[in-house]
Amino acid sequence: MTGHTVKAFDAELQELTDKIVQMGDLVKQQIRDALRALLEHDAEIARQVVATDLRTDELQRQIEEQAILTIARRQPMAVDLREIVGALRIANALERIGDYAKNIGKRATATGTEFGQVAALGGLRRMADLMLAAFNHVLTAYERRDAALALKVWQGDQAIDAANNALFRQLLSYMTEDARNVPMGTHLLFCAKNIERMGDHATNIAETIYYIVEGVPLDAARPKEDVTSLERAPTGR
Amino acid sequence: MTGHTVKAFDAELQELTDKIVQMGDLVKQQIRDALRALLEHDAEIARQVVATDLRTDELQRQIEEQAILTIARRQPMAVDLREIVGALRIANALERIGDYAKNIGKRATATGTEFGQVAALGGLRRMADLMLAAFNHVLTAYERRDAALALKVWQGDQAIDAANNALFRQLLSYMTEDARNVPMGTHLLFCAKNIERMGDHATNIAETIYYIVEGVPLDAARPKEDVTSLERAPTGR
Repeated sequence: MTGHTVKAFDAELQELTDKIVQMGDLVKQQIRDALRALLEHDAEIARQVVATDLRTDELQRQIEEQAILTIARRQPMAVDLREIVGALRIANALERIGDYAKNIGKRATATGTEFGQVAALGGLRRMADLMLAAFNHVLTAYERRDAALALKVWQGDQAIDAANNALFRQLLSYMTEDARNVPMGTHLLFCAKNIERMGDHATNIAETIYYIVEGVPLDAARPKEDVTSLERAPTGR
Repeated sequence: MTGHTVKAFDAELQELTDKIVQMGDLVKQQIRDALRALLEHDAEIARQVVATDLRTDELQRQIEEQAILTIARRQPMAVDLREIVGALRIANALERIGDYAKNIGKRATATGTEFGQVAALGGLRRMADLMLAAFNHVLTAYERRDAALALKVWQGDQAIDAANNALFRQLLSYMTEDARNVPMGTHLLFCAKNIERMGDHATNIAETIYYIVEGVPLDAARPKEDVTSLERAPTGR
């Protein structure tokens, strides 16, 4: 490979990294807006979140296309190939996170104006804060190729799951104590689930960063603490 | 390119196709088992569904790895590149569908034994049947590279969304009429959502098949009929 080719290759890799960072920032904005639309019951921001999702999807397609062209043109080995495969995986995870933000945006205006009085709001906010912090850290870990920070995010997913479990029980009580709470409670349950899934995909990104930097998968079983699907529905009560 | 190379390339493409078909069959089994575990309240099958998900994930990794090696080795153009990129996308969608099956499997034993008496069961079964039919068609469309059949699946997603909308309202009523129904209703809402998302990804696979065969994206706005996120929570009643 000539020096010129290597330089062109480096430029392509850098461009790919830049696109991922750009997509990460866009999704971060999408998450923030989705939460704001939900918590402040803002229909205009909610519409924006749904609209922004088209740009997120388009960026993913661009990253996919560029990654594949680069593989075909350069036949990269080892660390360079990991960079490109990693970009594909991270773009995929970011697209999923954007999708969950879109779902929250869609629900934001369906929650009704009494939403502010729901006690579970505090739990939802806390869970969202944990998830946003994890997402910010994982973007920083990618920009710095920081495997240690990625590992920290990966280990922190338990806290988000714990917050989700507490919120799940709280929302079930809220719905059980007054039938009129059922529709609102249902929306909030789905929002909590969306946030929990965002956290999962932030963790997936952390795994990919670790793989890019270290060259080995972070495949020790991730401590998974979301038990809401196992909460037993009482019978014959 | 020599004849030998072309032949080796064809063999690689065929192997990729075979792996996708294998993964499709595995996910089909996962869906069937998940629904059976849920509808028959079978803990053993539920455990199997969750366990099978590891094999699905592993197959996706293998397909990704092989697709990327083939791109690097053969630098394919046009239809061949579409085949490989399509395989990456389809494997990704199949992995997501398997994930939703796993989620249903996890919930299957939490629904309690009185589950069989829930009226919404019929709606859930109907929705699941529609989705399974779409999934079977899309696998056939892939094996035959049948763009017309793919288009048919793509257009049929509306029926699944309509079934989901009806079921959503039915489950809200079920929960509202008796607070004791809230936990079970919640599980079923999440199961319905999982089935609806599986249908979405079957539709995504249909889009990818169309793109592989026709070389142009099927990007007319898909008729999207899931309105459950817009159902207004009543306020101040």
